Amino acid sequence: MSKGAVSLALNDKPGVSDETRRRIKQAAQDLNWRPSIHARAMLSSRAFAVGLVLARDTRHLAVDPFFAGFLGGVETVLQGSGSVLVLQVVGEDEEVEAAAYRRLVTERRIDGAFLLDIRDGDQRPALLGELGLPTVAVGPAGADYGDMAAVGVRDGDGIAAAVDHLVRLGHRDIAFVEGAPAYRHSTSRLQAWSRAMEGHGLPAVLRDAGHFTGDGGAAATRRLLEHGPTAIVYASDLMAIAGMSVVREKGLDVPGDISITGFDDNPEAAHLHPPLTTVRQDPIGIGAIAAELLLARIDGRPADPDPPSPELIVRASTAPPRVTP
Amino acid sequence: MSKGAVSLALNDKPGVSDETRRRIKQAAQDLNWRPSIHARAMLSSRAFAVGLVLARDTRHLAVDPFFAGFLGGVETVLQGSGSVLVLQVVGEDEEVEAAAYRRLVTERRIDGAFLLDIRDGDQRPALLGELGLPTVAVGPAGADYGDMAAVGVRDGDGIAAAVDHLVRLGHRDIAFVEGAPAYRHSTSRLQAWSRAMEGHGLPAVLRDAGHFTGDGGAAATRRLLEHGPTAIVYASDLMAIAGMSVVREKGLDVPGDISITGFDDNPEAAHLHPPLTTVRQDPIGIGAIAAELLLARIDGRPADPDPPSPELIVRASTAPPRVTP
Repeated sequence: MSKGAVSLALNDKPGVSDETRRRIKQAAQDLNWRPSIHARAMLSSRAFAVGLVLARDTRHLAVDPFFAGFLGGVETVLQGSGSVLVLQVVGEDEEVEAAAYRRLVTERRIDGAFLLDIRDGDQRPALLGELGLPTVAVGPAGADYGDMAAVGVRDGDGIAAAVDHLVRLGHRDIAFVEGAPAYRHSTSRLQAWSRAMEGHGLPAVLRDAGHFTGDGGAAATRRLLEHGPTAIVYASDLMAIAGMSVVREKGLDVPGDISITGFDDNPEAAHLHPPLTTVRQDPIGIGAIAAELLLARIDGRPADPDPPSPELIVRASTAPPRVTP
Repeated sequence: MSKGAVSLALNDKPGVSDETRRRIKQAAQDLNWRPSIHARAMLSSRAFAVGLVLARDTRHLAVDPFFAGFLGGVETVLQGSGSVLVLQVVGEDEEVEAAAYRRLVTERRIDGAFLLDIRDGDQRPALLGELGLPTVAVGPAGADYGDMAAVGVRDGDGIAAAVDHLVRLGHRDIAFVEGAPAYRHSTSRLQAWSRAMEGHGLPAVLRDAGHFTGDGGAAATRRLLEHGPTAIVYASDLMAIAGMSVVREKGLDVPGDISITGFDDNPEAAHLHPPLTTVRQDPIGIGAIAAELLLARIDGRPADPDPPSPELIVRASTAPPRVTP
């Protein structure tokens, strides 16, 4: 018996014989059938939920300004859709993460999924393709997502805007503090800095990794300052804030001696002393677009959303380099 | 027919007659019964999910360092439990929030719920009681949660520790920048400051509201500085960071002229210049305890978890007051 017939019979709609309707209603009664979300889900093959599994140390969630904004953006779209978000954090084990997705699918808890933090050699796109689950990847624009629908985040444009801004101010020795090299959104920011420097005919040599942490950003800044940059571009606000303190500890002035730019536009950025020039990424807009795209994929509707562009917010942490006397 | 009989029949367990088993299996076949989470949920009356509905502007999620940590803590406990988290953000409308909880319950999507951001005159505890849903409230210790299980967050102890620390350093004119007066976790921090001041025989008069935002913290600091405090206790790190910049703009030194303490221990706090003395609240620990308590309530097990105590992290933004010459 088809699911369609079951639905018609239970909802007293025409299209099934009286005998079939009677038999289905009897079966529903025998099974204590109730008009719950589970019954609807069984009839329609829909779970009315979408999933997000994160393979991260839970301690890192609180450090990431993108995550909460992204969730908020997803929710603004889900609100009116009748679907809810199922969230699982599984720690940093990729095997456990893959198992979690597999279970959500086989238990039919979700109709589709978001894929974040895509890594080099990531196994999850292949797994989700195999499971036949509509999926939307969120990662840097221009990367290879295979057959998957993707929201291409244009991080690189933001980093390029920061380099352009510093070059216009007169800087040439512009260093870069990258995040965690294993993540694509980290490598894409590094590549954007390299390309922007080379585009201006400047060598892209002064770089170090800060691993997206405050301690890492401080350590990278200490090493880079040995080589006399007049400006440092950071791949996150947290690393930039830590770097700014290191510059000050050395008796140097921001922006008098060293100009500094961040990435994220954390709530703190506008309220530092000096306020931080940084890249605003609009994680809420990105979350909303990812959710629209995922719901469209689930419904089989076409969708071609245009992710928001990052914006350089110029504040007082950048200025022309001091003229050597 | 009982759910128990259905379960026994479908799982080929003894306890039902052959005729009953045959009839149930036929019914299951007629209904395209599949061993999905929905079937399990219908048989067991369990959704294998817990819910969290947040009535906030999605933009505020990214500002709140508690939220992401709390989620992480909840997830560490849910991981091994077979249950997932269903998350809904409904904007700042309390009516919409109540409707969302009602729908999650009537659609049997969740077995229990967390209740955060409890406000004065909050209607949700009564609603959730009426719906018969196991619920765990998370809010300041000592507040009235009626019949509801609650994780009492000891924010106040952290604020008291900050005041004690400043008094030991020699401060007497200690101002307070509160958050958003509508929230219980805001009023509980204000009350803790008042009580601590009075406990030291000091007047609790220098106070203003910063509404948990950077702009609000900066404005409150400007107003308070007119009245000559030697130290300011803030109800959040974001407000403290904004206040620190205001103090500097006025040509004053932190901690030389004004000592400053925050609340949250944001990732940035340790990396400011000077590093911020602040209260570390352990939102991950609180989330884990709330999840343990909720799972126990759902299973009808007793549980009496002990929430983590906040800890004052003393850094370089506090020092003895300058001796007036």
